[in-house]
Amino acid sequence: MPKSSFQEIILKLQDFWASHGCLITQPYYTQVGAGTMNPATFLRVLGPEPWNVAYVEPSVRPDDGRYGENPNRFQKHTQYQVILKPDPGNPQELYLESLKALGIDPRQHDIRFVEDNWEQPAIAAWGLGWEVWLDGQEITQFTYFQQMGGVTLNPVSVEITYGLERILIALNNAKAIWDEEWGAGVTYGEIIRREEFEHSKYYYEVADVERARQMYDLYSAEADACLAQGLLVPAHDYVLKSSHTFNILDARGAISVAERQAFFRRMRELARRVAEGYEEQRKELEYPLLKESQTSKVKSQVSEGRSTFDLRPATFILEIGVEELPANDVDTAHGLLSARILTLLDELHLEHGDVRVFTTPRRLVVSIDSLSPNQPDREDLVKGPPADKAFDKDGIALPAGMGFAKKNNVDTKSLEIREEGGGKYVFAVVKQKGRPTPEVLAEALPKLVESIKFEKSMRWNDSGVFFSRPIRWYVALLGDMVIPFEYAGVVSGNISRGLRPYDSPEIKIPSADKYFDVIREARIVLDREERKTSIIEQVKQAASLVGGEAIFDFVGASHDSPLLNEVTNLIEMPTAVMGGFSEEFLQLPRDVLISVMKKHQRYFPIQKNGKLLAHFIAIRNGDDIGVDTVREGNEHVLGARFADANFFVREDVKLKLEEYRPKLSTLTFNTKLGSMLDKSERIEKLVNELIPMLKLENDEAVFARRAVHLAKADLVTQMVTEMTSLQGIIGREYALRSGEQKDVAFAIGEQYLTVPQTIIGLTIALADRLDSLVGLFAAGLAPTGAKDPFGLRRAAIGIVQPLVEHDVDFDLAEAVKKSAKTQPIEVKDEVQKQILEFITGRLKVVLGDLGYKYDVIDAVLAAQSNNPAGTVRAVKQLQAWTERNDWSSILDGYARCVRITRGQQTQFKVSEKQLVEEAEKELYEAVKNLPAKVDGEVDSFLRSVVKLLPFIKTFFDQVLVMADDEKIRQNRLALVGQIANLSTGIADLSKLEGF
Amino acid sequence: MPKSSFQEIILKLQDFWASHGCLITQPYYTQVGAGTMNPATFLRVLGPEPWNVAYVEPSVRPDDGRYGENPNRFQKHTQYQVILKPDPGNPQELYLESLKALGIDPRQHDIRFVEDNWEQPAIAAWGLGWEVWLDGQEITQFTYFQQMGGVTLNPVSVEITYGLERILIALNNAKAIWDEEWGAGVTYGEIIRREEFEHSKYYYEVADVERARQMYDLYSAEADACLAQGLLVPAHDYVLKSSHTFNILDARGAISVAERQAFFRRMRELARRVAEGYEEQRKELEYPLLKESQTSKVKSQVSEGRSTFDLRPATFILEIGVEELPANDVDTAHGLLSARILTLLDELHLEHGDVRVFTTPRRLVVSIDSLSPNQPDREDLVKGPPADKAFDKDGIALPAGMGFAKKNNVDTKSLEIREEGGGKYVFAVVKQKGRPTPEVLAEALPKLVESIKFEKSMRWNDSGVFFSRPIRWYVALLGDMVIPFEYAGVVSGNISRGLRPYDSPEIKIPSADKYFDVIREARIVLDREERKTSIIEQVKQAASLVGGEAIFDFVGASHDSPLLNEVTNLIEMPTAVMGGFSEEFLQLPRDVLISVMKKHQRYFPIQKNGKLLAHFIAIRNGDDIGVDTVREGNEHVLGARFADANFFVREDVKLKLEEYRPKLSTLTFNTKLGSMLDKSERIEKLVNELIPMLKLENDEAVFARRAVHLAKADLVTQMVTEMTSLQGIIGREYALRSGEQKDVAFAIGEQYLTVPQTIIGLTIALADRLDSLVGLFAAGLAPTGAKDPFGLRRAAIGIVQPLVEHDVDFDLAEAVKKSAKTQPIEVKDEVQKQILEFITGRLKVVLGDLGYKYDVIDAVLAAQSNNPAGTVRAVKQLQAWTERNDWSSILDGYARCVRITRGQQTQFKVSEKQLVEEAEKELYEAVKNLPAKVDGEVDSFLRSVVKLLPFIKTFFDQVLVMADDEKIRQNRLALVGQIANLSTGIADLSKLEGF
Repeated sequence: MPKSSFQEIILKLQDFWASHGCLITQPYYTQVGAGTMNPATFLRVLGPEPWNVAYVEPSVRPDDGRYGENPNRFQKHTQYQVILKPDPGNPQELYLESLKALGIDPRQHDIRFVEDNWEQPAIAAWGLGWEVWLDGQEITQFTYFQQMGGVTLNPVSVEITYGLERILIALNNAKAIWDEEWGAGVTYGEIIRREEFEHSKYYYEVADVERARQMYDLYSAEADACLAQGLLVPAHDYVLKSSHTFNILDARGAISVAERQAFFRRMRELARRVAEGYEEQRKELEYPLLKESQTSKVKSQVSEGRSTFDLRPATFILEIGVEELPANDVDTAHGLLSARILTLLDELHLEHGDVRVFTTPRRLVVSIDSLSPNQPDREDLVKGPPADKAFDKDGIALPAGMGFAKKNNVDTKSLEIREEGGGKYVFAVVKQKGRPTPEVLAEALPKLVESIKFEKSMRWNDSGVFFSRPIRWYVALLGDMVIPFEYAGVVSGNISRGLRPYDSPEIKIPSADKYFDVIREARIVLDREERKTSIIEQVKQAASLVGGEAIFDFVGASHDSPLLNEVTNLIEMPTAVMGGFSEEFLQLPRDVLISVMKKHQRYFPIQKNGKLLAHFIAIRNGDDIGVDTVREGNEHVLGARFADANFFVREDVKLKLEEYRPKLSTLTFNTKLGSMLDKSERIEKLVNELIPMLKLENDEAVFARRAVHLAKADLVTQMVTEMTSLQGIIGREYALRSGEQKDVAFAIGEQYLTVPQTIIGLTIALADRLDSLVGLFAAGLAPTGAKDPFGLRRAAIGIVQPLVEHDVDFDLAEAVKKSAKTQPIEVKDEVQKQILEFITGRLKVVLGDLGYKYDVIDAVLAAQSNNPAGTVRAVKQLQAWTERNDWSSILDGYARCVRITRGQQTQFKVSEKQLVEEAEKELYEAVKNLPAKVDGEVDSFLRSVVKLLPFIKTFFDQVLVMADDEKIRQNRLALVGQIANLSTGIADLSKLEGF
Repeated sequence: MPKSSFQEIILKLQDFWASHGCLITQPYYTQVGAGTMNPATFLRVLGPEPWNVAYVEPSVRPDDGRYGENPNRFQKHTQYQVILKPDPGNPQELYLESLKALGIDPRQHDIRFVEDNWEQPAIAAWGLGWEVWLDGQEITQFTYFQQMGGVTLNPVSVEITYGLERILIALNNAKAIWDEEWGAGVTYGEIIRREEFEHSKYYYEVADVERARQMYDLYSAEADACLAQGLLVPAHDYVLKSSHTFNILDARGAISVAERQAFFRRMRELARRVAEGYEEQRKELEYPLLKESQTSKVKSQVSEGRSTFDLRPATFILEIGVEELPANDVDTAHGLLSARILTLLDELHLEHGDVRVFTTPRRLVVSIDSLSPNQPDREDLVKGPPADKAFDKDGIALPAGMGFAKKNNVDTKSLEIREEGGGKYVFAVVKQKGRPTPEVLAEALPKLVESIKFEKSMRWNDSGVFFSRPIRWYVALLGDMVIPFEYAGVVSGNISRGLRPYDSPEIKIPSADKYFDVIREARIVLDREERKTSIIEQVKQAASLVGGEAIFDFVGASHDSPLLNEVTNLIEMPTAVMGGFSEEFLQLPRDVLISVMKKHQRYFPIQKNGKLLAHFIAIRNGDDIGVDTVREGNEHVLGARFADANFFVREDVKLKLEEYRPKLSTLTFNTKLGSMLDKSERIEKLVNELIPMLKLENDEAVFARRAVHLAKADLVTQMVTEMTSLQGIIGREYALRSGEQKDVAFAIGEQYLTVPQTIIGLTIALADRLDSLVGLFAAGLAPTGAKDPFGLRRAAIGIVQPLVEHDVDFDLAEAVKKSAKTQPIEVKDEVQKQILEFITGRLKVVLGDLGYKYDVIDAVLAAQSNNPAGTVRAVKQLQAWTERNDWSSILDGYARCVRITRGQQTQFKVSEKQLVEEAEKELYEAVKNLPAKVDGEVDSFLRSVVKLLPFIKTFFDQVLVMADDEKIRQNRLALVGQIANLSTGIADLSKLEGF
């Protein structure tokens, strides 16, 4: 194929979309981060008027600048933006057509719709859709807008945003954009590359922060002024200018976390006012573009008339055809359908054979064998009014009786009187004729579809239905008969669709029996497990070709892993494609490589003897036609991503890790609590306090002090700025490259793990988490309700869980007090108490998760919680005691002591002289003889109780505690009270069942 | 023809230029006033690299906003920009092809290339070219860039800037843009109109001036920062942002005249640094786009081989084919060619018959009848060394003689000896064989073309030749033989080109004799006078059709007028087209209507009984095919222009004229001299002083005071802001509409005329001009050399000329002193003297223009100049005296008195007692008897001299003035001195010829 030029692509897209009824407009006249910001999108998607538009949008993103060195990442890239409003019903197909117009044959490539929840907080906008991947490369964003400027959209608009540079690279199978032709014999690089360098340098190094702040303020004020006059486009212009200026400040690293929120709040507020103003304006103008009412897009999917209905049991098939569901939603739908379909059949009284559920990203399938053609006839007993209201004494029907009979369509004479709950009532035996299954299903199926709910769902057409992604067809066949129903604007039929790479051809399903054959013929692997197994096999085989083994990261002994599961749900026909990358990238930190391959690209990495190989395995959707193109495409993408990481790492390692530390002052932790550097200094102090508390050895102490000093430094490296999930990991890598001790580096690396493996890592992690909890609680930012913006619940679990798992004794109250002293704001005692209670709350959750009984947990937590390891030991021991056969007598004996002293004013000093009865003297002796030092363990305590048990029994049998003589009574209560108090600080047994 | 849509036009242009080798790029991402500002033009036209590009550019010009009410004027219009670098040799033809691709058939329209000297001071750029008019509407700017960012361009780039909205209006024959389709069934208005309103309101009413100023400063500082780092594109971005912000400030009326200069200086400086930096950068990169050397574009214009050369005298034709010359340049070329060709033939010794010169905008033609085929043979006498150096006494040739003979290719024997200037020299008789005319012409013609110089000229190709506009062909035929030459990269031939509307077809000229027939057949009217006569006839006839008469504004009794002359030079084949406009516009001030028709549109207005009719006559280039389209197009344009004027007037008359006065404070006159309001107040004061000096009647004084109060108020009206040339005229109109007296209004109206007709107008004009002169001289802003940025020469002439024409006596010295007192800065006596001298200088020019002899003028000015009217009277009288037959004796007699006293210390008191001789006594008596009161007139003075003449003669004959006796000598000198001093303050006759 001859090579394409950049301008040809654009001209072809212009022609394509113009011929498909789109307005062609121009890029906007102010810098925007995306075509979405252009008023031709931002404003026009609001309100009810139709709007179909396409335009080029050179999009400027300062922090994507790479000085012209990265093969496909630039501070300015060129978007081609299409808005279809309302949804034409087949936007994916239109889009794929447009790719064909560019020369991209889906058979020769791997085109994938990969879940993407699009969100742009600066303009209060979100939508659901996909990244479209071409051979692993994201070339398009495809979104169903749900909100814009905070306004809920109705109708929904489809946004298609092509990344033109990437498309050109893919089309020409190029390594980079630079040498590809723009047009007229001039290359893209010849036009753009120097500009990329200059702008990158400007945004990263030269832009004056103070001036940019002033510009931001001026723009923002001007936007206000425009809004006050109802000038919405001018106002929007200034919102865009604010936004671009914010991006410059951000690229300069001048925005603290707290500031960022304030900036976004302000931009969002402006965007919201613009959007609301525009909606209002269009309404006042009476929606001039609303020329004709939009007709409903319901389409019949029946290819021919229905057959006659057979009265024998038949196979039933329901296929819900959807646009590509997110991987998790495939599982969610699978679970819900499996549960719901059985209940439904039961409710409908339909007899049936095997029921199976299959799910792929594009279809949710229920198959039912031998479904009865009819409901059985049934008799139902219906309860009516009390007998004496229905009939008089003579058995003559009264109005209430007659009404009830009439309502149930029976004769009053057939009403029966039965007793129920001690009263007499009339009952009607109602005979129900079983209805034909097609009729029943036609009613039930919409509700079945409706019952599938997702965590995140969207609207797309005027049915207003919410679903994970648009539903585009139903196959609903009982035998060869279509069960007619309509839901979400789509009508059922007998037409399915084939594989994406085959252009999703329409496939007629002649009858339900034939469904699986037809689908298999269409090469769709319907069964999730079958796809998964196939992937594992293919991946293993591919890895063995290079003498390595694939990294599946199976969970435990299972054959499941998050990546495998996701990949399985991304395709309907798996074909493994192995590719390689340049060996030089193997110098990058392993976690970076793996993270990029797994997280970003959904590839399986390959290793040999624990070392990564320069290969990966991708799973393509489709067969192996054009597999070389697919491989090369994927290799290009991965290469570009690694080059990007390389760029960061190369820049980063110009400084030692320690040298990044001062820059932490530019990162705000919290306005009241200071910068990340302040935090870093606090946790250094706190680690000094924790070292004795955690009993670290000398070496360990030295390492811990160094590790905590460096712990946060990686946060200001470019690599972590780019991939936040690598925090700690990058710290570890850079620490090693900076010549730090391995123990230090390792501790840095594990600080973000919930349970660090080393005591050094644990020390840092505890200090970090305590500091966050104490500081943020003191700043009044404790979680409320479901909101936990600072992740404090996770922080508390991160304190409790490692202490428990490592069984390390630790005085939380003391630690909180120590941390409080390092805070820049006062942490009142009351607040410290709240913090401890909050941690206890998490501890309770952890204990519950460990399987302990709630009464046991409550009993222990009521008495102790500030040393989680001890608490867990106590719970474990107490639970063991409660499982003893003699437990009830032990508990009972002890309980008597507790109960009688409850609510009494007792002083606990027992006067030996005042002991009168023998039994009390013996008890006193026994108490005195208990082991002097109680170690605070449940076992010790209860062993003591057991020893006292006979004496307690005798005591209560023979001695009247509540003697008339005040002194004697007090003395006896004191004695019993001593026993009751044995549990102090150990457990409150009164919380136990049977107490 | 089906209607076009806006997006179709764009897509067609993209296709057209892409297929003609242009890069297609995108609009720029920041607001620009024109596509020229896009770096794809601004930067890429610099340096030697080729660059061909086309792109859309929505262009934002805040002060073109009309709230969406004007049919074709908008704050944002859409340009289509094409850059061709280097000049492809046929850019006009390519452009016309592109119009055809849009559906514009040149035969059906009137397409005109109208001179336009493009200049953009904010970016230090200029070029020459045209506005392209389609049926009177400017649809394109076509420019050969000469400089950009202050850098001289080499090669020159051709810029073609289409105005897409206007093209759409023309294509669809629409009244306005609003209802035309943008695309996909949506109209332009539906997309844009509300935005136009909002932006107009923003720019005119809402934009915050203080914030805009701050933005400007920030941008400007950021541009500096970028330049300091060599970041040229980022720097350019900020130059553009500065420029847009300046435009906002300007639209808000916030820029004073003085500030404007500072703003422009700053923007220009930045643009210059960007341009220079870019040139440097490309050089360092070694001009990567300079892929292959640009081959010279010399094209042969010979259609077939040359015939044999005939030895008989033949007709010679030279046709210089050019792209449309500016009207004035057609005349310039005509004059130069006419003069030069005769001299040339003479120099070349070529015998010839009639020589004629013809000029049209596209061809400069010289025809020579009966041109001799050869130069005649000639003998030249060449002077050699002195005879005695050439030959010895024996007549033997010496080396000098031999050398001379050899050099002249003669034998020493043939040398002749002749006397010359008293010496003897050898002479050689050199015979020169006449060369063939073709050979001579081939050498001479390039020089002939080169000798045509224009006031403003340009380069266009790598020949580096300067000409008014590009030369594209030569026809050079002697009989049927092509005279071969090359100049400006173009080679001569026998191919001419036809009329523009006929697509400029190539026309073969078989022989010089046939030239005129062929050209006439091609319907080109070669003769300027013939075209002019034809226009007059057609216009008169057309006007008579509506019962009116055309306004030609013939100068004096001639059949010439600037408009007629211009129109004649804009076309090669005149066809009058009459159109009309809405009667409602007749309410606009007559001068506005006429000014728009004549100045902007080059139409002939029509009136009846002194009142304008709602008609106009345009002169089309071409025949009458499609004349209705042409008419409608022109009507549309005129309607739009009138609508624009109407917009201004309607807005303006919401206030009374007086109410505009306070706003004059926002217009700076000069930083040292204050605002226009300050100036207005000063001239009010001055008028009060002038009223007695000019002897105004009571009524006149009242009117003058009122008129001067209002005189400048119109400067801040929108109409004058838009059309500055209407200052005063609009003041008059608005004064009348505000209910002012007619005399007041009329005076306001004539204040800018060089010679106001009324004494009231004169009073205001004098005050205004005196104030400018006095103030600006005092501020150190007197004209220097050729520079006169404040038009002070014109102001001085405007003082002198009306005083002279009205013959009003006026003491300039007194007036300057009075004005000096009103100035806010000191005006030293020395400066006042300079001012008076400066005015005298202008007076001298005025007198010269009146035809007086320079010695007479000098004589009078040496004695008096502060009352111009008196001075002129004196000059007039003196000149009459000098023309008398007896003048020499009068002058002589008087001169004797002057000469003898010159340089002598004389006291003028004559002592009667010391008179000795009779002759001196008689002279003394005669002097005593002269009329007592000398009125200062030349006539009185010279009449006195005449009376004294006989006595003077006798005196000098008989009396020895320089007597030995000191006292007698002094007394005689005193007597003669009294006569000499009669001329004091009248004239210094010693300056006269013959003195």
